[in-house]
Amino acid sequence: MAAVNDPPTHYGVVLFPGFQALDAFGSLDALNTLSSRRPLRLSVLAETLDPVSTKMPESTGTPDPSIGQSIVPTHTFSDAPSDIQVLLVPGGKGTRNAKRMEPVVAFLKNYYPKLEYLLTVCTGSALAAWAGVLDGHKATTNKLSFQWVTEQGPNVDWVRRARWVTSGNIWTSSGISAGIDMIFAFISEQYGEALAEEVAVVLEYVRNKDPTVDPFARQEA
Amino acid sequence: MAAVNDPPTHYGVVLFPGFQALDAFGSLDALNTLSSRRPLRLSVLAETLDPVSTKMPESTGTPDPSIGQSIVPTHTFSDAPSDIQVLLVPGGKGTRNAKRMEPVVAFLKNYYPKLEYLLTVCTGSALAAWAGVLDGHKATTNKLSFQWVTEQGPNVDWVRRARWVTSGNIWTSSGISAGIDMIFAFISEQYGEALAEEVAVVLEYVRNKDPTVDPFARQEA
Repeated sequence: MAAVNDPPTHYGVVLFPGFQALDAFGSLDALNTLSSRRPLRLSVLAETLDPVSTKMPESTGTPDPSIGQSIVPTHTFSDAPSDIQVLLVPGGKGTRNAKRMEPVVAFLKNYYPKLEYLLTVCTGSALAAWAGVLDGHKATTNKLSFQWVTEQGPNVDWVRRARWVTSGNIWTSSGISAGIDMIFAFISEQYGEALAEEVAVVLEYVRNKDPTVDPFARQEA
Repeated sequence: MAAVNDPPTHYGVVLFPGFQALDAFGSLDALNTLSSRRPLRLSVLAETLDPVSTKMPESTGTPDPSIGQSIVPTHTFSDAPSDIQVLLVPGGKGTRNAKRMEPVVAFLKNYYPKLEYLLTVCTGSALAAWAGVLDGHKATTNKLSFQWVTEQGPNVDWVRRARWVTSGNIWTSSGISAGIDMIFAFISEQYGEALAEEVAVVLEYVRNKDPTVDPFARQEA
């Protein structure tokens, strides 16, 4: 597909406690690398400016035995720049707590009409479903969490066998690493295949360029 | 290969300004996921406790046009826990500034004798080379930066065509995404192939299990 004339320059990513690191950083590092070739901006959004951990907060009452990393936001949801064009929404165990996700979901619902594109990775699609923005769209999600996520969006046309799905201005990927294939497809569409391939070579990433090739669909549950 | 009886439980990762996000987070997210199945600890090490950006600091005098993210360390190099068993060293554009890398290189040189394993991704191998710990070892590195890195380690037996290389207790990978294949091979060796495959399925990651398969070796420069 040819590059469009006026590709996006301002990206945002939504973070919340218990987000999956690679859901965010797979896409973000492709964009980091792209940004040394095409001028880009990035807003890292969260409920507050406190660092956001990939671990669940202790206040959830359920000890999280896993290790994690903490990322520093640049803006809160309430002071997000008004000109973000593409919003990335990662998934992760944090999405399972609907009550704690309310600020994220409210932000998605309010901001979506301003976006050119919404991209979700993994169970980030559950957040988009709760925000109502997936209703009537085709979408996919994490395969091990397929049943849970799809129950969150009864009016969504869920696609089981897909590495990623595009529907209108919404791109949804399957679990975690699938987000990397999706971002390369997005870069290819928006900035041209040559630049997408250049970034993939820098990242030494072997792309899956076919959204219907999904080796993990058999893991559905 | 069978899992060893007493696999590592304490990992460390070294961060520095201008590290490549996916060099670190590819491996780290596999370990994050592993840690919900096997108890692990992680120490995130840097020169100070200030958040560490994937961008080059403004003080380098060379404006860095790229976007980036900032990660919060848990320990400084000088107060690093003494019982880290496996140290991950990412690469990135920051490695090109030898003067600024001195604290990282000094830490690697001092800490290496205490380690069970040293794992480098991408141009992280240049830091290990400067620390002298790669001398006499086989190693590999980023393919687009192959010439520069190998010049930093004249006494290293550099392997051009390799996704990753093991030599004694040192594992080195090719660029960025190659680190993900390497960490899965490491998890397989240390904790067993069944657990490595389980984590790969969670991450929906299609592994390259053969370290000699290197689609990017032709990009050498």
